[in-house]
Amino acid sequence: MAAEPPSSASPGHFALERGAAVAPRAGLLSTGHGVVRTPAFMPVGTQGTVKGLSPADLRAAGTQILLSNTYHLMLRPGAELIRSFGGLHHFMAWDGPILTDSGGYQILSLKERVKITEEGVAFRSHLDGRPELLTPERAMEIQADLGVDIAVTLDHAILLPASPEEVRDAGERTIRWTERSLGHAKTLDTPTGLPQLHFAIVQGGGDPALRAEMAARTAAMACDGFCLGGLSVGETKEETWILAAAATAALPADRPRYLMGMGTPIDLLDGIARGIDLFDCVLPTRNARNGMAFTHEGPINIRNAAHARDPRPLDAECGCEACAEFSRAYLRHLHVAGEILAHRMLTLHNVTFYQTLMAGARAAIERGAYDEYHRAVTHRYRERAAASGDSGPGGREPSGDNS
Amino acid sequence: MAAEPPSSASPGHFALERGAAVAPRAGLLSTGHGVVRTPAFMPVGTQGTVKGLSPADLRAAGTQILLSNTYHLMLRPGAELIRSFGGLHHFMAWDGPILTDSGGYQILSLKERVKITEEGVAFRSHLDGRPELLTPERAMEIQADLGVDIAVTLDHAILLPASPEEVRDAGERTIRWTERSLGHAKTLDTPTGLPQLHFAIVQGGGDPALRAEMAARTAAMACDGFCLGGLSVGETKEETWILAAAATAALPADRPRYLMGMGTPIDLLDGIARGIDLFDCVLPTRNARNGMAFTHEGPINIRNAAHARDPRPLDAECGCEACAEFSRAYLRHLHVAGEILAHRMLTLHNVTFYQTLMAGARAAIERGAYDEYHRAVTHRYRERAAASGDSGPGGREPSGDNS
Repeated sequence: MAAEPPSSASPGHFALERGAAVAPRAGLLSTGHGVVRTPAFMPVGTQGTVKGLSPADLRAAGTQILLSNTYHLMLRPGAELIRSFGGLHHFMAWDGPILTDSGGYQILSLKERVKITEEGVAFRSHLDGRPELLTPERAMEIQADLGVDIAVTLDHAILLPASPEEVRDAGERTIRWTERSLGHAKTLDTPTGLPQLHFAIVQGGGDPALRAEMAARTAAMACDGFCLGGLSVGETKEETWILAAAATAALPADRPRYLMGMGTPIDLLDGIARGIDLFDCVLPTRNARNGMAFTHEGPINIRNAAHARDPRPLDAECGCEACAEFSRAYLRHLHVAGEILAHRMLTLHNVTFYQTLMAGARAAIERGAYDEYHRAVTHRYRERAAASGDSGPGGREPSGDNS
Repeated sequence: MAAEPPSSASPGHFALERGAAVAPRAGLLSTGHGVVRTPAFMPVGTQGTVKGLSPADLRAAGTQILLSNTYHLMLRPGAELIRSFGGLHHFMAWDGPILTDSGGYQILSLKERVKITEEGVAFRSHLDGRPELLTPERAMEIQADLGVDIAVTLDHAILLPASPEEVRDAGERTIRWTERSLGHAKTLDTPTGLPQLHFAIVQGGGDPALRAEMAARTAAMACDGFCLGGLSVGETKEETWILAAAATAALPADRPRYLMGMGTPIDLLDGIARGIDLFDCVLPTRNARNGMAFTHEGPINIRNAAHARDPRPLDAECGCEACAEFSRAYLRHLHVAGEILAHRMLTLHNVTFYQTLMAGARAAIERGAYDEYHRAVTHRYRERAAASGDSGPGGREPSGDNS
């Protein structure tokens, strides 16, 4: 078993415990609200809540760290209000680590309501049309007000395909904004008084060479970790991994890497194999509300008539409340009848499934058997998925929040 | 403190423990799934779930007995399916007592899609328009299939105002249907093998004399308890209590009385003062989803801007998860953002509030101080309610299910 980190580990400390330095790797990331054992999956709590779940549910599901969102919280209820409550942890009653995305991606999804200049991103709120300006500095101020453990720098995100000039331009701007973000962040304090880590986003579009260059230039800055951004935005899965690998090869091994906004259970295992330490994705939560449950034998859709009389739990190997208490038949009835408890229970199950998958991956890395774990889980999951249809597209939460 | 009932108490046994035989009274109602300490409030689980809450939540809120609905469950997922799962308790994973309404009231709300004959109620499903016939016999068969602890006979419900002829006709038909229901129920068995209690509905429209006559004629039948039906359907609150009192005065003291489908916290206390033992109402659950929370100082609406920065819990005297964990400001944020957790937490709080109110009422009856309790709670609740607007109309769940 892995040793506990020394109690003197200060926030920002990242210790590699097992596995190769490059991949796969098991680490300990120290934050102001505790240590995250990596690889780790962050459920998405866009508006300061993981839809349907209480903090106690998230703990029971094995969640170590949550993701929330700068863009959404700045608009509603507002960073100043959350700061006055002592920060997001107090406001939402979650005492574990929190990372916030900087909002660049959500603003990207606003499309025509956005104008990017060197100063920052001018946009209109999706809630009331009010004009807003998010600069690199303001993004960090908001995240300092939220008091989150890990703040992310503002980037210039683009959709693929894009011209080489557009990609280079957005990449260079991201580098400049990262410098501004990190510089300004040093001047800020949090409502908790706890130190904040700062992760920088590596962009670079669809060009592996540019990805590598951007990664190397970002690595030269004094950030606590790296986010791989602008992936899974239109390119093929094979291209995604080529681009991710180009970036990680240029990153130092001693800081954590976070792959933003993807993906399926298989994506997570594939990402771990490539040296990714942190993940987030809306799939387990959003798809739960559409009736999809992830299981060890692949995804199932509870709306399917095949489940109408099925007395089995969603997943016989799962110990979550949904699987301990309820049959597929009952959950199907709830879903078809539009009952809240269906959304809540499928969400609880899916988050538990993701966390169990990650805990298994870490244990496999610790015992030096990740390849076998990766292969066995993937094989079993895909066998059934091939029979029942796949899990649908991955993705990050857009501005409209369907996380 | 009240003594525990003798373990030999068979289902259907109703023992008055404290208070006057007429009102207010504290009783013990034995069922196949345990003893209910009365007076008791039944949260409404129309479709086999109390919207947003798990069975564990319902227990934590102090719930002893649930209400579910024959009409809704016969249409979806179907009584035969639930029987095949060993009954509704197994299907929904609730091991406490369950009472089902017979469906007459829900069908009434279908209006033009209903035709009542002596045989029964012909109607079209609100889900798919399929023609259905609910006879007194079928109502009991469905409830036997559901395996609920307390089944309710089919009645001919009407809306007020109605002509004396209509009221008399519906009342006489209800008497005949009650006889048919009770006679047929004796021939049925439940999937659990546990005995079932049978409650008969007392109708009589807006005429106190007819209410008394119907009560006396129903009391002459071999039923285990009485439901006061057709109240709170258009008449004033004063009229409601005159009609209820006319009925209860003609009922024997040694069988429980259930006031169907109402009401506010004050209604419950007023009903207990008049000898009512069981209540159900959609208010705590439905209003929770509209942002209304019941508190010891009257109802509040969490959408109100006054709560935007309020760090206090919904109710400082409540120990539920919502009040222990979250501020009004956070719950308001969740509600305004349309988050499921708002519905879940306000529902949990409101059910806890209702159950705490009932537990307090029973304790007051036990120590011979109900009048003081009734007066003090009502005074405090109304003071604030007068300042902030009242709790809105009461009501039972209609066919469309907004319970």
